[in-house]
Amino acid sequence: MLDVAKASWVQVKDAADRGVLAVLAVGAVEQHGAHLPLLTDTVLAAGVARRVAQGLDALLLPPVAYGDAWNNEGFAGTISLSPTTLRAVVEDIGRGLHRIGVKGLLTVNGHFGNREPIALAARTLAELGLPVLHLDYPKLEVFAGEVCDSAPAGNHFYHADEVETSMMLALAAETVAMDKAAPEYPAFPETFGLEPMQLSTFNRSGVFGDPRPATAEKGEALIRKIVEESLRLAAIWKTRHSIGL
Amino acid sequence: MLDVAKASWVQVKDAADRGVLAVLAVGAVEQHGAHLPLLTDTVLAAGVARRVAQGLDALLLPPVAYGDAWNNEGFAGTISLSPTTLRAVVEDIGRGLHRIGVKGLLTVNGHFGNREPIALAARTLAELGLPVLHLDYPKLEVFAGEVCDSAPAGNHFYHADEVETSMMLALAAETVAMDKAAPEYPAFPETFGLEPMQLSTFNRSGVFGDPRPATAEKGEALIRKIVEESLRLAAIWKTRHSIGL
Amino acid sequence: MLDVAKASWVQVKDAADRGVLAVLAVGAVEQHGAHLPLLTDTVLAAGVARRVAQGLDALLLPPVAYGDAWNNEGFAGTISLSPTTLRAVVEDIGRGLHRIGVKGLLTVNGHFGNREPIALAARTLAELGLPVLHLDYPKLEVFAGEVCDSAPAGNHFYHADEVETSMMLALAAETVAMDKAAPEYPAFPETFGLEPMQLSTFNRSGVFGDPRPATAEKGEALIRKIVEESLRLAAIWKTRHSIGL
Amino acid sequence: MLDVAKASWVQVKDAADRGVLAVLAVGAVEQHGAHLPLLTDTVLAAGVARRVAQGLDALLLPPVAYGDAWNNEGFAGTISLSPTTLRAVVEDIGRGLHRIGVKGLLTVNGHFGNREPIALAARTLAELGLPVLHLDYPKLEVFAGEVCDSAPAGNHFYHADEVETSMMLALAAETVAMDKAAPEYPAFPETFGLEPMQLSTFNRSGVFGDPRPATAEKGEALIRKIVEESLRLAAIWKTRHSIGL
Amino acid sequence: MLDVAKASWVQVKDAADRGVLAVLAVGAVEQHGAHLPLLTDTVLAAGVARRVAQGLDALLLPPVAYGDAWNNEGFAGTISLSPTTLRAVVEDIGRGLHRIGVKGLLTVNGHFGNREPIALAARTLAELGLPVLHLDYPKLEVFAGEVCDSAPAGNHFYHADEVETSMMLALAAETVAMDKAAPEYPAFPETFGLEPMQLSTFNRSGVFGDPRPATAEKGEALIRKIVEESLRLAAIWKTRHSIGL
Amino acid sequence: MLDVAKASWVQVKDAADRGVLAVLAVGAVEQHGAHLPLLTDTVLAAGVARRVAQGLDALLLPPVAYGDAWNNEGFAGTISLSPTTLRAVVEDIGRGLHRIGVKGLLTVNGHFGNREPIALAARTLAELGLPVLHLDYPKLEVFAGEVCDSAPAGNHFYHADEVETSMMLALAAETVAMDKAAPEYPAFPETFGLEPMQLSTFNRSGVFGDPRPATAEKGEALIRKIVEESLRLAAIWKTRHSIGL
Repeated sequence: MLDVAKASWVQVKDAADRGVLAVLAVGAVEQHGAHLPLLTDTVLAAGVARRVAQGLDALLLPPVAYGDAWNNEGFAGTISLSPTTLRAVVEDIGRGLHRIGVKGLLTVNGHFGNREPIALAARTLAELGLPVLHLDYPKLEVFAGEVCDSAPAGNHFYHADEVETSMMLALAAETVAMDKAAPEYPAFPETFGLEPMQLSTFNRSGVFGDPRPATAEKGEALIRKIVEESLRLAAIWKTRHSIGL
Repeated sequence: MLDVAKASWVQVKDAADRGVLAVLAVGAVEQHGAHLPLLTDTVLAAGVARRVAQGLDALLLPPVAYGDAWNNEGFAGTISLSPTTLRAVVEDIGRGLHRIGVKGLLTVNGHFGNREPIALAARTLAELGLPVLHLDYPKLEVFAGEVCDSAPAGNHFYHADEVETSMMLALAAETVAMDKAAPEYPAFPETFGLEPMQLSTFNRSGVFGDPRPATAEKGEALIRKIVEESLRLAAIWKTRHSIGL
Repeated sequence: MLDVAKASWVQVKDAADRGVLAVLAVGAVEQHGAHLPLLTDTVLAAGVARRVAQGLDALLLPPVAYGDAWNNEGFAGTISLSPTTLRAVVEDIGRGLHRIGVKGLLTVNGHFGNREPIALAARTLAELGLPVLHLDYPKLEVFAGEVCDSAPAGNHFYHADEVETSMMLALAAETVAMDKAAPEYPAFPETFGLEPMQLSTFNRSGVFGDPRPATAEKGEALIRKIVEESLRLAAIWKTRHSIGL
Repeated sequence: MLDVAKASWVQVKDAADRGVLAVLAVGAVEQHGAHLPLLTDTVLAAGVARRVAQGLDALLLPPVAYGDAWNNEGFAGTISLSPTTLRAVVEDIGRGLHRIGVKGLLTVNGHFGNREPIALAARTLAELGLPVLHLDYPKLEVFAGEVCDSAPAGNHFYHADEVETSMMLALAAETVAMDKAAPEYPAFPETFGLEPMQLSTFNRSGVFGDPRPATAEKGEALIRKIVEESLRLAAIWKTRHSIGL
Repeated sequence: MLDVAKASWVQVKDAADRGVLAVLAVGAVEQHGAHLPLLTDTVLAAGVARRVAQGLDALLLPPVAYGDAWNNEGFAGTISLSPTTLRAVVEDIGRGLHRIGVKGLLTVNGHFGNREPIALAARTLAELGLPVLHLDYPKLEVFAGEVCDSAPAGNHFYHADEVETSMMLALAAETVAMDKAAPEYPAFPETFGLEPMQLSTFNRSGVFGDPRPATAEKGEALIRKIVEESLRLAAIWKTRHSIGL
Repeated sequence: MLDVAKASWVQVKDAADRGVLAVLAVGAVEQHGAHLPLLTDTVLAAGVARRVAQGLDALLLPPVAYGDAWNNEGFAGTISLSPTTLRAVVEDIGRGLHRIGVKGLLTVNGHFGNREPIALAARTLAELGLPVLHLDYPKLEVFAGEVCDSAPAGNHFYHADEVETSMMLALAAETVAMDKAAPEYPAFPETFGLEPMQLSTFNRSGVFGDPRPATAEKGEALIRKIVEESLRLAAIWKTRHSIGL
């Protein structure tokens, strides 16, 4: 793996000349309750991306720290990019990679609202000739069920709960305030997902679920499983595109 | 200071309710010779921004890691946003701050190519009602003359030289490979700055000047002076906008 | 219900002055195997929208016939709007409704690829003051399980199968060629949904599942259930927005 | 002719492989007095387009139902696309046709305000390699003089009058309320066409002229003549572009 | 009249404070045969605009010298703005006028291809509150018939012919090369105006008609009539908008 | 030199076929105190551009009269293009030149705010294959020191002062009102250039410096020196791009 943040251009050039993939984490600056930092999604995506890049001996790009967290803007501190801007960011980065001959891009996305902008950027980049695999913690719902004790607050909705808190304990424990961790199981309006809706209209704390049973061990297990699954998918994707690295 | 990356939304809300400024570093993923990492501009801007935020007791935002480094794209590893995208990123962030009542935004820019996109974003934000002070290491040329021993490679052109290398030694010494530091004083074409031009057409190493005399002490001195001057300008700016924080 | 296609402006004005909702179907021109017409998604969405409009005594707008069916472009006859264009279409229509005082907009979407563009348009319109409920055949997976006999080809993937064929038999039987209906259960690549992918790369006929057991009765049952559920959700949404029509 | 709305992708593929043209009607959702439906322009354009497609053995595309009817927005029920959106819609459709090898596109436009957006889309498509003939009921003023008894309300201004009402009686009589047909010959402000102007500022009913003498026979005659002239022009256009279908 | 090109801001401020209109010529850099300069349309529009501004005691703005002359790009020297760019130029200028309190804008357009971009800009500006009257040599076809001897080459098509050449002789005789004036009556393809078409495909010289009978007297007569008609329309427009200047 | 404003397309075609450069002045409609006209920047840029074009035997394009003078909008009469619009104008013109085979474009910019939009347009055009040299009165600060007697008001800030007034006296003396020329040495806020700021907030007259010592002779000297330097740079630029004209 080559960490672009710390690498020199000479090292990147050598890697690109030999043939290499790139891994890009995309996160968000978004409320995560009183016990997790606003940068949680970026920290988690960057942590997973680092291990994926290690597994692929790829370029690890600096993460995109801001995402589209529109529906959490009711909580102060959430700072969003518009989906149009986020898509442009990923497209610009992809164009830069394609220019120097990188063989493909994997995105590791840590925030639900980023999915579609990334997918649309991937479409543009694929048409330019850069294959993109856009991952969102594959099979997380399975792994959460295997590892965690508390019930999720909603269907596939892991936000500031045992899942994310455990992963943060594994990656950046010093930013977690477990003494402030408190459960909230909000009643989702039935039109949730079917109309523009601020989460703050039905959620008081910013937590969805119960973060209290979180441990670093669970977080480590979750991350390990996500990374393994990401690498399995990456292998299939490389074969599909005849990327023989 | 409240570091948004590590803070919770509750803390940001408290700060915003009391009245607060925000500080945003904008950097670049750009070649910086064989001895400095590609993320140099972001690391430096973030380091200065942190101290500025401390001096103002402001919100410290996560840095924008990618910038417009078009003219260094001839070196592999430089990954740019288009100026239109970068402007949109800063505007989106500013809109988010304005929404929650932040009183003003200071940008700390570490890369020349970002100046105009940030200035245009500032214009948009000012028209929305958010004052923006966009700083680019004010008086750096004076401070460089006071602190550094080597001559700059071009007029006000500090890139991977004694200035930047010293600052990196002060902020992130572990990413500096002084054994690879070598001087280059390229001959600038006379039309430099007057036509679209890749720096790689007249610069071989990516270095402009002589990084070898760099020391952490010099870097610390430069940063201290830049921060002091930034705070002096911020105080004037706050008075101009009747921001009585 | 007032069918805008057949109504005069005088009738719409009367309705708008009394207070009214509007219902907009959004479909696609997209391949649906050899036995269903390219306009299937539009026909189905329009059929459901009509009944929803009846249930709400709302304005029934002419359907948006074209959608974003990018991943079916490998089959001739699929004609897509870009997601940006589709979003603009829905926003423009919504602005027109808002101007004359329509109280809210329900979209009835018949095509997966339209979801995000419609949701983003809804966000814009909500910020302008027009509430939008964007429905995509709510609970279809439950109803399909209750009504249909064949297994779906993929998870929640109903395309030219028993579900859609039954609904078409209920709404536009004359356009269905049951003699050409043939099953196909394609093997989805594991990276499906995780990278830009033309369906034609792993699907030969355009069918996903088995359309042969389709009947008009099943279609009628599906539509009835979808409409009931849509109306139930619309009632909740109206209450949420204090729309007392 | 192959009606894309009812055809399967297999049929379109066969046609495209043999070589084929496509015909696209573009209409509007626009007030047409108390006796004609809001969808009049779309119904008429679609009716003409169908016969043109028959004459050319072409693909008949589903009509674009919404157009740019900005200057009729003073009447409730008029729902417009912006000219930029409409242009994008036609361009997207044209790109889809070009991708599968369609030899050329004829647009049949039923609404004045759509002319320029379609013409600009045609320019874009022509530069991509798709010839476009954009027709607006060619020689309508001649044919109206030959067929109709009442005088037009303005110069070449046929709106909800004997011309359009006759054509609607020929194509969709069930949507025409002749008992509500009443004449209006508004006084056009002299600056009409020279400044942005809502028609509702000088027109009360939405009718321009006298719809009362309208008959289905006259409508049939008008349509027949328009279609003949359209086909004559299409033949010339095909020759100009060496389209030997 | 106040000629903005020669006036100081103090004079414009005084005029704006008292209440004033503005007049903007929009022209083109477009081929006009061998005997007329490329800037003909701009020179003519500016000449008419000057007299209109005199008649209205208005601000005379510097002309927009470039227009959308796409269909003359087959002749070297034609340099066009895209219609989107031209529209933005007029909108930006109008916004600037509105900001300082100008009561209304008259555009004097000298080039056919500019009509729609100006009309769309006018729509935007009207919605911002700035009335716009967009004139295109009103009643030119009547005046041409009264003043000129030669027949026009096409219907309302005055290009490098007796009309334009006479007007140029009246306004800028030194730029007219009458010795190179030669007639050409090209055969217009029947699909002219109905498909994107370069004029150079059926016109050799760039002239449409016969410029040889042109005289400065005829040009003066044409300009006088156009200006009178423009002022008559402007008076009506002022009344419509209660502009009592 | 061929003045495009007065040339015919035939002459431009001959020049383009032989191989030729083009020169484009870009100015502004911007306040210049009580003694200079609003069009000063355009007049000056056009005057310099003419001589540069003569020196290069190039095409002289009609100037772009409007620029981005946002920070002078506090003074009535300043009429700006947005930077996005200005960039598009220059790109469109460049595309037109490239299409007919012009070898390169020199821009002569007379207004500070235009620099970045022109530079970004140049980047786009260079990527299309048109070399662009974008000049802004090269070495003006040196020449001003050599020629003028009064001190500039700010660092490299020449606005309505001895420099610009002298140049206007040399080029368009009839538009200069020396009796209204009065000095003003405003106190620049320390945050000038570091935040969006209207000049009118600290400058009363619009003058920066002292225009009273201005003479036509000084203006002529300045222009001569600027033109010489421009031609020297153009020669280097031509060599760099192997333009052997």
